[in-house]
Formats: sequence, C-alpha cells, structure tokens
Amino acid sequence: MKIILIGGQGTIGKRVAAALAPRHELIIAGRNSGDIQVDIASETSIENMFSQLKTVDACICTAGTGYYGDFQTMRQQHMLAGITGKLMGQVNLVLIGKQYLSEGGSFTLTSGIAAEHPAKNGTTVAMINGAVNSFVLGAAQELKRDQRINVVSPGLVEDSKDRYGAMFPGYNLVPMDKLVNAYLLSVEGAVNGKIIKVYS
Amino acid sequence: MKIILIGGQGTIGKRVAAALAPRHELIIAGRNSGDIQVDIASETSIENMFSQLKTVDACICTAGTGYYGDFQTMRQQHMLAGITGKLMGQVNLVLIGKQYLSEGGSFTLTSGIAAEHPAKNGTTVAMINGAVNSFVLGAAQELKRDQRINVVSPGLVEDSKDRYGAMFPGYNLVPMDKLVNAYLLSVEGAVNGKIIKVYS
Ligand SMILES: NC(=O)c1ccc[n+]([C@@H]2O[C@H](COP(=O)([O-])OP(=O)(O)OC[C@H]3O[C@@H](n4cnc5c(N)ncnc54)[C@H](OP(=O)(O)O)[C@@H]3O)[C@@H](O)[C@H]2O)c1
Ligand SMILES: NC(=O)c1ccc[n+]([C@@H]2O[C@H](COP(=O)([O-])OP(=O)(O)OC[C@H]3O[C@@H](n4cnc5c(N)ncnc54)[C@H](OP(=O)(O)O)[C@@H]3O)[C@@H](O)[C@H]2O)c1
Repeated sequence: MKIILIGGQGTIGKRVAAALAPRHELIIAGRNSGDIQVDIASETSIENMFSQLKTVDACICTAGTGYYGDFQTMRQQHMLAGITGKLMGQVNLVLIGKQYLSEGGSFTLTSGIAAEHPAKNGTTVAMINGAVNSFVLGAAQELKRDQRINVVSPGLVEDSKDRYGAMFPGYNLVPMDKLVNAYLLSVEGAVNGKIIKVYS
Repeated sequence: MKIILIGGQGTIGKRVAAALAPRHELIIAGRNSGDIQVDIASETSIENMFSQLKTVDACICTAGTGYYGDFQTMRQQHMLAGITGKLMGQVNLVLIGKQYLSEGGSFTLTSGIAAEHPAKNGTTVAMINGAVNSFVLGAAQELKRDQRINVVSPGLVEDSKDRYGAMFPGYNLVPMDKLVNAYLLSVEGAVNGKIIKVYS
C-alpha cells in the first residue's frame, strides 16, 4: 500500500512508521519534518499535499494537540489552535482526502482517552477528542467506494512518560506495541467506524 | 432559583420553560426572542447577557444547531456556524458564565443522539455533540464553588416529528415529558458531569 502518515516523526507516529515501513510504501508528512510538508490547520496545505501524492491507499494522522491549562482562566482563544489543528485538521484530511484515497482505502485518525476521562487542565483536549470520535462515526457511514475510517484513542503512551507523565497522575502507561497494533488493525484490517481505544 | 434559559422559545426550550416557570424566576434568552437578547456565537454578547443578569442560580442552553447536508460536498465552511454556535457558544456560556453563577449553581447544556448514532447527512452535528459531551466531562471536574454541569443528549423529540422526522428514519420519538425530566434532573437534582441520554 501507498500510505501517507501525517505526524510520522512524532512520538506515536515514529512507532507507527517503524511498523509499516518494511511492507508498505510509506510517506511521512509534518510541518517541518518528514518527506513532504503539510500544515493540517490549512485546507490549502492539505489540498497541496494530496495533489502532490495523487493517490494513496491509506491516510493516517498522528499529528496535532490541544491546550492544557488552568480551566479558571481558559477562554476560547486558548482553544482555537487545537480546534483548527487537531480537530478541523483531521476533519479536513477526510473531507479533502477522500477524493485522493483509492477504492477500499482507509483513514485512521487519532483522538485520545481524554474524550472519556479528561485529565485536570485537559478540557480542551477532551472536547477535541470527543469531536473527532463522533466525526468518525458519522463519516464511516458516508464514505463511498468501500473506503473505511477509524480513530485510534490512545491513553498516555509509554514513550511520552517523561514528557507528559506528570500531567496525568493515575493514568496507566500504554505499551507502544499495543498502540501500534491499533493503527495496524485500522490500516491493514477490515474494521470501519470504530473508536479503537487503547487505554492500558 | 433564578434561571436563565437560552433558546427558551425553541421546540425543546419552551417545554423546559413550561416546567420551570411555575416554581422559579425564569428568564428566557434568544437572538430574536425571549426576555433578553443574546447570540451565543459571540463572546461579547454572552458577557453582556451575564452582566445584565448579574447573577443566576442555573444556566440552561437549548439553543443552537449544526449543518445537515451531503457529506460528499461538505467542507469546513459548512461546519463553521455550528462550531461557532452550538459548540463554542455553549462552551463560552460556561467559561464566561461561571463567574456569574452562584455557589452551588448549575449549567445544563444540550448535545444530541448524533454523538453516538449519527443520522445520514449528520456528521457535522455528530462532531459537535461529541465535543459538547466531552467538554462537560472535563468542565465538571474543574468548576469551583460547588457548581455543577451536565449535558442533556436528546434523541429526536416528539415535537420535532413534522420538522425533522423525515431526516431521521428509524429514530424513536422521545416523549417531551421524559426529555423535560432530564433538564429537571440536572437543574433541580444533584448530578454532576453526566451525559443525560434521552433516546426514546
Ligand atoms: N503522546 C500521548 O501519550 C498521547 C496520548 C493520547 C493522545 N495522543 C494524541 O496522539 C497524537 C500524536 O501525539 P504525539 O505525542 O505523538 O505528538 P508529537 O510527538 O507532538 O508529534 C506530533 C507530530 O505531528 C506533527 N504535527 C503537529 N502539528 C501539525 C500540523 N498542524 N500539521 C502537520 N503536522 C503536524 C509534528 O511534526 P512537525 O512539528 O514537523 O509538524 C510531529 O511530528 C496527538 O493528536 C495527541 O493528542 C497522544
Ligand atoms: N429537536 C430535536 O429533536 C433535537 C434532537 C436532538 C438534539 N437537539 C438539540 O437541542 C437543541 C434545541 O433544539 P430545538 O429543536 O429546540 O431548536 P429550535 O426549535 O431551533 O430552537 C432553538 C432556539 O435557540 C435560539 N437560538 C438559536 N441560535 C441561537 C444563538 N446563536 N444564540 C442564542 N439563541 C439562539 C432560537 O431563538 P432565536 O431564533 O430567537 O435566536 C430558538 O429559540 C439544539 O442544540 C438541537 O441540536 C434537538
């Protein structure tokens, strides 16, 4: 398969990349990293990426994040980057990318455990993850040409222990191989419209 | 209690209003209707509303909607009004309103069954409802001064049969008194951080 992996040099993305690279034609995208540059916060940038790729058999996104910070002082302005990036970025990958995705191809997005179990200071991320999950349930019913879509919802992953561990007291660490399996299930399996939860 | 009900002249809102009015000081808000005018799509308008009210014991929102339409041609631009209105409108009611909400007061937002069971053409609404639900899970952990927050997630309601029935084949009609009870449970009860699903 020809696979585009947006965020493929990130913490999660590079593990997914390592699993897929041996048996697929893998193209990695990021704003400043990877084989091809894209900013998913921009529809034009997404359109440019896909028109360069021409066609892909799978589109995976492990890019994007959201605001963590004190709820008392949080305002809409703090939330916008995450809405434009992780939420609408992933939505736009689907709305734009479905024309470039081959028959039987798949989208695999990324949300996170916060949709159901928000951490302290994580209400923005919760909201974004909940939105991505429900978007996928809708999109799975609508895609044509046997295209599929799923979303992987990771808990706090092992490789992020040092970077994020202190923000998530009481969250179990997710082994990277279990998380990678969720992406393989979506890309190489047959599931559709699933929120693939990997919480521990 | 002094209660502000945004959308109180809408299909759902007027039933909630009828149940609350006999035993509370009820103020109804809408863009063009009600006792006080507010456009929840504007932070400034929300700020104005609350500063006129000075303080409230409960804030209920039954206002807002999202795009229904063909997924194949749907683009970000179709989704923005719902994101600004039903999603960020309700989020901003909380972020701004918590300063004006009394100790022990409550927020009650509205999402919808689409978060879990999107209808055909309803992926935008699904996304918005999923976002509102997860926002509430986060916000419930963060509110201070014993404030509570819940979200009512209605199925297709009886009073909307003529207006929306044809768009929701196979959806059970929700009796209005059961739906109204969900709002009463949130406002007059003690629950917090609940997604109160009323699907049939
Ligand atoms: N790490 C965890 O424990 C965890 C848990 C739950 C959910 N998640 C979710 O999983 C996803 C990946 O997390 P991660 O920890 O692997 O993130 P990360 O290490 O920060 O990597 C993100 C990657 O995405 C790229 N990227 C960021 N914004 C982009 C944009 N607007 N357009 C294109 N590329 C962009 C970055 O590369 P450039 O800088 O070159 O753009 C980077 O390679 C995120 O959505 C995160 O919320 C992570
Ligand atoms: N009806 C259903 O079967 C159903 C099912 C599931 C979920 N829901 C959800 O329940 C909520 C209420 O639905 P409904 O059918 O009762 O809606 P509706 O009949 O269209 O009423 C909406 C009310 O909200 C006000 N409003 C709309 N936008 C506003 C804004 N930006 N600022 C302030 N007020 C605004 C409107 O008054 P003005 O025009 O004066 O502003 C109107 O009174 C919506 O979020 C809907 O998605 C409804």
